Amino acid sequence: MPEHDDPVLRLRVRFAETDQMGIAHHAVYPVWMEAGRVQWLRANGLSYRSIEDDGVSLAVSELEVRFRMPARFDDLVAVHTRLVSARSRRLRFAYRLLRDDDGTLLATGATAHTPTDPEGRAMRLPEDWFRPIAALLEPTF
Amino acid sequence: MPEHDDPVLRLRVRFAETDQMGIAHHAVYPVWMEAGRVQWLRANGLSYRSIEDDGVSLAVSELEVRFRMPARFDDLVAVHTRLVSARSRRLRFAYRLLRDDDGTLLATGATAHTPTDPEGRAMRLPEDWFRPIAALLEPTF
Amino acid sequence: MPEHDDPVLRLRVRFAETDQMGIAHHAVYPVWMEAGRVQWLRANGLSYRSIEDDGVSLAVSELEVRFRMPARFDDLVAVHTRLVSARSRRLRFAYRLLRDDDGTLLATGATAHTPTDPEGRAMRLPEDWFRPIAALLEPTF
Amino acid sequence: MPEHDDPVLRLRVRFAETDQMGIAHHAVYPVWMEAGRVQWLRANGLSYRSIEDDGVSLAVSELEVRFRMPARFDDLVAVHTRLVSARSRRLRFAYRLLRDDDGTLLATGATAHTPTDPEGRAMRLPEDWFRPIAALLEPTF
Repeated sequence: MPEHDDPVLRLRVRFAETDQMGIAHHAVYPVWMEAGRVQWLRANGLSYRSIEDDGVSLAVSELEVRFRMPARFDDLVAVHTRLVSARSRRLRFAYRLLRDDDGTLLATGATAHTPTDPEGRAMRLPEDWFRPIAALLEPTF
Repeated sequence: MPEHDDPVLRLRVRFAETDQMGIAHHAVYPVWMEAGRVQWLRANGLSYRSIEDDGVSLAVSELEVRFRMPARFDDLVAVHTRLVSARSRRLRFAYRLLRDDDGTLLATGATAHTPTDPEGRAMRLPEDWFRPIAALLEPTF
Repeated sequence: MPEHDDPVLRLRVRFAETDQMGIAHHAVYPVWMEAGRVQWLRANGLSYRSIEDDGVSLAVSELEVRFRMPARFDDLVAVHTRLVSARSRRLRFAYRLLRDDDGTLLATGATAHTPTDPEGRAMRLPEDWFRPIAALLEPTF
Repeated sequence: MPEHDDPVLRLRVRFAETDQMGIAHHAVYPVWMEAGRVQWLRANGLSYRSIEDDGVSLAVSELEVRFRMPARFDDLVAVHTRLVSARSRRLRFAYRLLRDDDGTLLATGATAHTPTDPEGRAMRLPEDWFRPIAALLEPTF
């Protein structure tokens, strides 16, 4: 499937992302979740870059990750993203991260986001962005 | 206060830790919390490096952060760590991150940890480490 | 081209990789170069993970990057890797990083590597790895 | 010595900065050099944050690191910074990174910088910043 159509991000664990325990460091997962969210938006016809260019950021207000199994260097990881709640002042996403070759569940996660203006003040997500995003709501996996 | 005695880690927000929103990226907070935990152990006479040298890792099984106010480049951030639950197979820590100059609360967080052996298998925390750690339990701030 | 056959790594600039100048932070380029090197080895039938599993690391001894044009969030970056010198005790790689959509040269780079054993001591690269790697030598682009 | 007066940055190697070789990953050194540069400016009465607030960035155009000895988790690393060349359109810094407890040289490095405006265009460093910076020129260690 071409990248633009695939809502699931597939990424290789980078060597720089490992730690001395020999596994991907836990602080890398929020970075993967973010990249997964951007890819999911793209596959749904929405560009997070364009949202930012319009002067709107989706600032992270809450972050949660549960780690099940470690990811290792060079593993192919599939990041599944889902929008679970959409209000003009708060969006919530949920994530499932799987090892791609055998489907092992590596981690689940969630983020909450507050739309903010370039000065960092909370704002309503403009209608032109809110409508197409809210249409993607998928409360249950 | 000399570094070895101060349970509170103070760190400067690095330029590399900012993102294009002009604030510290949210994935940096778990890194700060980890560094705060290591410093808190040190101030309490415990070296996380020695724990690792003994073949025990405190693998992160859960991570949670709530972001209140953004941290900016060069801000001095104080990371307060507290052990809130201690069992031989699970430890839980809580964190408060404050802007040091005016005491603004930037974020709160929590982590849960599973003691693991060098092969990554869950294990009981050896008594020699469990006892001194459990003695630091401080269930309420 | 399927990933396993393509010696050029294509990656999206992650939001976490930007800084408050609004561009990819310069310390991310060595990470991209490393990922490019791993992909180039894979496309040439060599797994860096297997090299590591054999107890050999290619520790970086020198790093050099020249930045021409900034990379921005969500840009697709193509990392071209080339092995420019191969001795059993030192490998040298060169890199060209291009913006994929218009071919703009973003940066050039180079790394030198010392094969090391699990204790971090310099060693000769074992023949079984040295021979296939040296066969990939491509002293000029 | 209070932080504001010490041109040498001292930092602890973070767990997140290690990789599966059990040492600090090489891409962390440019981050440390950057933090060292900011501290060196501060100790010399100059705030990099204020430079940025004035709409001037010192974009990195060249980066070079030579790695001598690995840094390990929890090592205290001293970053020595020196300005080796100062022209209004290019600054060059050199770095020495030492393990603080025994003075072992871990790495040496260098960066070149181009003053840029908020749109990323190269510019002359304004006189009000150029003069005090150039006064710190120290061509030989």
